[in-house]
Amino acid sequence: MAETYDPPVDELRFVLDASAPWHRVLALPAFAHVDEALVSAILEEGARFCAGVLAPINHPGDEQGCVLDDGQVRVPAVFREAYAAFVKGGWAGVDLPEEVGGQALPTTLAVAFSEMVNGACVAFGMMACMVRAGAHLILEHGEPAMARRIAHELLNGEAGATIVITEPQAGSDVSAIRTRAVPESDGEGADYRLTGSKVFITCADQDYTGQIYHFVLARTAGRQTGAGLSLFVVPKRPADVAALPASATNGVSVLGLEKKMGLKASPTCAVAFDDARGVRIGAEGRGLACMFTMMNLMRLEVAVQSVGIASAATQCALRYAHERRQGGNPSLSIVQHGDVRRMLVQMQAMTGAMRALVLDVASALDLARHAPSETERTAAADYADFMLPICKAWMSDSAFQVANLGVQVMGGYGYVADGGMEQYVRDSRVMAIYEGTNGIQAQDLLRRKLIRAGARGYAVWLARMRETLEMPLADATPVPLRAALASALERFEAITAELIRAESERLDLCAAWYLQWAGLLAGAWSTFRLATAVEPGTVRTDVRLATARFYFDAILPEAETLERRIRAGDAGLAGALADALAVPV
Amino acid sequence: MAETYDPPVDELRFVLDASAPWHRVLALPAFAHVDEALVSAILEEGARFCAGVLAPINHPGDEQGCVLDDGQVRVPAVFREAYAAFVKGGWAGVDLPEEVGGQALPTTLAVAFSEMVNGACVAFGMMACMVRAGAHLILEHGEPAMARRIAHELLNGEAGATIVITEPQAGSDVSAIRTRAVPESDGEGADYRLTGSKVFITCADQDYTGQIYHFVLARTAGRQTGAGLSLFVVPKRPADVAALPASATNGVSVLGLEKKMGLKASPTCAVAFDDARGVRIGAEGRGLACMFTMMNLMRLEVAVQSVGIASAATQCALRYAHERRQGGNPSLSIVQHGDVRRMLVQMQAMTGAMRALVLDVASALDLARHAPSETERTAAADYADFMLPICKAWMSDSAFQVANLGVQVMGGYGYVADGGMEQYVRDSRVMAIYEGTNGIQAQDLLRRKLIRAGARGYAVWLARMRETLEMPLADATPVPLRAALASALERFEAITAELIRAESERLDLCAAWYLQWAGLLAGAWSTFRLATAVEPGTVRTDVRLATARFYFDAILPEAETLERRIRAGDAGLAGALADALAVPV
Repeated sequence: MAETYDPPVDELRFVLDASAPWHRVLALPAFAHVDEALVSAILEEGARFCAGVLAPINHPGDEQGCVLDDGQVRVPAVFREAYAAFVKGGWAGVDLPEEVGGQALPTTLAVAFSEMVNGACVAFGMMACMVRAGAHLILEHGEPAMARRIAHELLNGEAGATIVITEPQAGSDVSAIRTRAVPESDGEGADYRLTGSKVFITCADQDYTGQIYHFVLARTAGRQTGAGLSLFVVPKRPADVAALPASATNGVSVLGLEKKMGLKASPTCAVAFDDARGVRIGAEGRGLACMFTMMNLMRLEVAVQSVGIASAATQCALRYAHERRQGGNPSLSIVQHGDVRRMLVQMQAMTGAMRALVLDVASALDLARHAPSETERTAAADYADFMLPICKAWMSDSAFQVANLGVQVMGGYGYVADGGMEQYVRDSRVMAIYEGTNGIQAQDLLRRKLIRAGARGYAVWLARMRETLEMPLADATPVPLRAALASALERFEAITAELIRAESERLDLCAAWYLQWAGLLAGAWSTFRLATAVEPGTVRTDVRLATARFYFDAILPEAETLERRIRAGDAGLAGALADALAVPV
Repeated sequence: MAETYDPPVDELRFVLDASAPWHRVLALPAFAHVDEALVSAILEEGARFCAGVLAPINHPGDEQGCVLDDGQVRVPAVFREAYAAFVKGGWAGVDLPEEVGGQALPTTLAVAFSEMVNGACVAFGMMACMVRAGAHLILEHGEPAMARRIAHELLNGEAGATIVITEPQAGSDVSAIRTRAVPESDGEGADYRLTGSKVFITCADQDYTGQIYHFVLARTAGRQTGAGLSLFVVPKRPADVAALPASATNGVSVLGLEKKMGLKASPTCAVAFDDARGVRIGAEGRGLACMFTMMNLMRLEVAVQSVGIASAATQCALRYAHERRQGGNPSLSIVQHGDVRRMLVQMQAMTGAMRALVLDVASALDLARHAPSETERTAAADYADFMLPICKAWMSDSAFQVANLGVQVMGGYGYVADGGMEQYVRDSRVMAIYEGTNGIQAQDLLRRKLIRAGARGYAVWLARMRETLEMPLADATPVPLRAALASALERFEAITAELIRAESERLDLCAAWYLQWAGLLAGAWSTFRLATAVEPGTVRTDVRLATARFYFDAILPEAETLERRIRAGDAGLAGALADALAVPV
């Protein structure tokens, strides 16, 4: 089962066709070279690669895992071969400039392709994502000549990249980072020596590539406390950074390889920097700001991973449910049982809503970067800033839920490794944790994006939802959906207004519930937009309308519970929880 | 982390003290020998055993797993040693008769002990549960002399037991079972030859014991179709069943050992019976009826496993949250963050509700068996019949949810094996599947217990809830809880009345939602009962009242969503789902 993955090219095309922001992206001067035929070619070629090369290594990768062998991490051999083919096919830099070996395509298209990569093999997708994110980071903030050289090495398969933030005592709280960076003796240049210990570093070592560029947050002298961190690039092998003197090693060593619940073919390491030479990127003390562009891309990527896993799990469950016969005389396939249908349609409805939303936000990132008018760029950037924590948290929770429904559909076969489904559960579980836990996303949404940023992105979103509500419906669109969306929007606005004025304890307690509410609404809006784009009379139309109905009848009502919780979640309840937990167990 | 488990003896004692049915059980003539001192001794000795012997093997067992070696399954060596100590301590037969080596204690107490076993090591608990269930089964339905002999072997550690139902083509649908049982040549006795293949059999082979008694559902000639199955006991080694001629093997062979998501130290096997000699238990064609007593015990046991895992996960998360410092200046332990508190109190509130409910239902089983009046026995049996699918399904879902919250509290440390938490997620995931999937439990609740059985058990439950609502409140009990429970009860009755009259498609679609509603209500009722038993002024009282408030303010509102879903879940929606899934992917 697990080796079969059928990339949803038709679905991706349908969602893109129905997306106004995507049509706007295609009309940008920056993408004058991109037309429908090129988009189709990318999707179809990408699908062929993902189904043919990546899907077959997913389950073996989980079984073999990575090993730490005399200080060197080794990934499964089939992963190395797949990576070579990935680079050769030009897939490493879909939305990066041609001058460094990229394809100069919109991020929206990179996201569509990445859904297929992650649906086929999310552990492989981790390496792909690190490299692409590293290239974006260095091009945006590094000294141009060095940046071009490093980005080129990343995209041609010579080098990997890592994002090195977390330390044992500094997880969600980056201000507690202790790794030190001391300027080289002349004290003038951007060259530093880094010393410190980092943990939970994805691809901190691997044997895909000879070189690895570590993008490290560290503290310079005089910035002992708080968030005054700088960003450095530290190569695994110093010889490859021409600006630095060559020596045998660069003082970067792997201390351990984590044994994880899932993502076993993606190495996660503890790593030590011992007087390691690095180059500062961006201004001193501006490391977090430099990382932010990066972290936004990574949050979007977690959402994309979530769509990929949800889609793959849904396919797997559907295939099983059509094939497996149980009950009835003559026997029925289990897809004919109402309880199984309930779970399958929930999986389909959530996956469809997630896909439409993530592509919409990806298009906003393209517009934020390339739209000709500053007004349009700012609105798109504000919108993306607001939606990214929602995408990251709601979709990672949803992917896990979808994979678990898949296990339930398959019963005992869902619980055993051969069924393929339990791997999706294990692989997806980390997505609610890394790149900022979902709790951190919720605080970011409520405190930073809504309150501190004056709800600018929220205002853009509201305007877009109102616009959607005023659009003419397709003949096939069920009319009650519009009223249901309008009512949900109204209630969400009321809760938002209430929370903006709320005391701090209430925000702490309710932020996660509020984000879930926002995710449900964003999913309902996305579902409704797709339902207005259907053409009557085809089979897929029936499916789309049934899943839309299910979303509004059975998924969106989760908001009822969240609303109750948020209304009850006042300072009094927060105080009761504090009392209950005052004494250690 | 994982090796630490602090058995909740005080909590168990508090819940038992607050339980009217438990006081009724203690007053039964059958348990005249059981007093408070004995109860305390059992809980304390049991706690010592679970914390000292079982908790330390939980994580190593997950790492080592089982192996299949030349047709023989081997469990981790530490598990064999622990099992020997378990048997020697007299723990194998807590609620079985003294004449076969049991302790003749109430099932309620066996359940309290079993929570601690499963909290310490659920993979070990599987073996314990199989043996205890097998002994109950044979004593209830087997020919007395043979039954006593087999039960004695089970409880003294000579023999293990298995429940052998599932076949590749017969999972949820037992009527599709094909394994054949042919009478021995004389055609008169209870001796048969069995041939067929079974899958997903827990402890189908192991090296805890030399002998294994397989309790097998199979089909006799003339009963080719439907549920006309008989129950057989088939020993692994024939020499040990005196009624059968000795030979080298008994035609039982292990075909494979499943590689599972969790419960890795509990072997799950495919097994073949090839002309294996067995003895029929109970009348021909009555196998399913014989299995039912057994299956009820197993459903209760899954609920107990769920409480055990939820309790262990909650402890583990609480310890971590008090120790781990993150954010704030000076730094705060993460238990001081509102979002972390929300998760921890949810874990506590759900665990407490589950524990109180499962002990209440266990007492009903004691009363159903031992109460002097038939009226009382029948009412207790009807009540237990109604509550068991709720306990099994709602608690297994809840335990998984609690363990997942634990992962989220621990962040990255929750996702790695060393943290101990991810094992609870993997171990608990199967509980929604085995012993009848939660979908099957929901159909059983709605179609069999509510509709076909004339809602007898439901009526007993309603009467008990109304009685609870009329009890005087303790001084410390928050008054609003009573109104909230009364209102939830009223709404649940309305939904129940609606579904009893509903068409079949609607029952299929809504059964799972209805069961979840019932579970939430049962949890609220249990939480309220505990809240009326608190004594004011102690720390644990504050904790209990805060978790009660959280249950009513933030958990019970899930019923809002379920109610909406059930109201929307009509034949129209069911039809739309059918249309959406008509065409294979």
